Amino acid sequence: MGLLDDIAAGNAAWAATHGNRNLPNLPARNAAILTCMDHRIVPLRLLGLSVGDTHVIRNAGGRASDDAIRSLVISYKMLGTREWFVIHHTRCGMMTFTDEEMRALLRSSLEPAWRDDAGWHDHGGGGSTHGDDIDWLTFADLEQSVTDDVARIRNHPLVPARIPIYGFVYDIDTGKLSEVAAAMVASRPTA
Amino acid sequence: MGLLDDIAAGNAAWAATHGNRNLPNLPARNAAILTCMDHRIVPLRLLGLSVGDTHVIRNAGGRASDDAIRSLVISYKMLGTREWFVIHHTRCGMMTFTDEEMRALLRSSLEPAWRDDAGWHDHGGGGSTHGDDIDWLTFADLEQSVTDDVARIRNHPLVPARIPIYGFVYDIDTGKLSEVAAAMVASRPTA
Repeated sequence: MGLLDDIAAGNAAWAATHGNRNLPNLPARNAAILTCMDHRIVPLRLLGLSVGDTHVIRNAGGRASDDAIRSLVISYKMLGTREWFVIHHTRCGMMTFTDEEMRALLRSSLEPAWRDDAGWHDHGGGGSTHGDDIDWLTFADLEQSVTDDVARIRNHPLVPARIPIYGFVYDIDTGKLSEVAAAMVASRPTA
Repeated sequence: MGLLDDIAAGNAAWAATHGNRNLPNLPARNAAILTCMDHRIVPLRLLGLSVGDTHVIRNAGGRASDDAIRSLVISYKMLGTREWFVIHHTRCGMMTFTDEEMRALLRSSLEPAWRDDAGWHDHGGGGSTHGDDIDWLTFADLEQSVTDDVARIRNHPLVPARIPIYGFVYDIDTGKLSEVAAAMVASRPTA
């Protein structure tokens, strides 16, 4: 019950003081950010932005999944955003295993795995083949994953060519954001 | 170029001072939060948590989409989380239109829509039927959507029964988080 209690206390303190009550219904900077669920990522702060400025979409890897694109299309068509930012990051957990390793581990056990010099392991004892049909969206090359995702969004049939899409890598260690050159090319509308 | 320039300057300031360089590879509080992309939501702050404490998964509505479940399963199996929180919120944009309205608007135009007393409109001029096959995951009842999503995660074949799953509504105006009673029931493992 530790975390649940802490959250109740933390939220009571927040509710007593928070200043977000009168934010407009649409994001002030008219943008959406797609990035990773990683606990070290603080999307608005690393961009120098404020609460209320942008939509923030996050998943494992910051990938342009069908669901991320669902959210982006809603963000543009219905909720006021006009440009989109894709940000992946160094030392991402999604670069530490492959889709095939994930599937094999889940077939062995649904319980937590760990990694040592010999690779990933779990305690076994019975898993599921249900992960075999899932695209886990792991990746090996960070700039390539940003470029692939910018291209996937750009070429989606519900994404107008006029929406700027920017691709960045965030360095967890230095705190620096770098635009990915290949993603700039991939974001150009064709024709 | 306004926002892109502001982000470059904002990130330079962040990189000069940020204190997140030495955070561990796994989230300190061993939890994952699934919530909405809404610009008014600041997930860690409204829970009284700190950078590095939890994974944060966000999409339009905070829904338990296949992609959110992909992220949660990775979070538990590979990246150290042990309990999960689903948080939807009052005044959510996903309650202002229906899946059928979204599909009709996209068939009319991919460009932005707006709403007045008579409903949603856009300028027309040519859209796409590609949205017809997408489940947009809109909802009309806030507590029901939390309950449905907790149940969907609980009953997923890759989710072990031992993982606690909590469902909350966040009130944008008061800043208060309320646990959803029906979601508590839905989160109980069956047998």
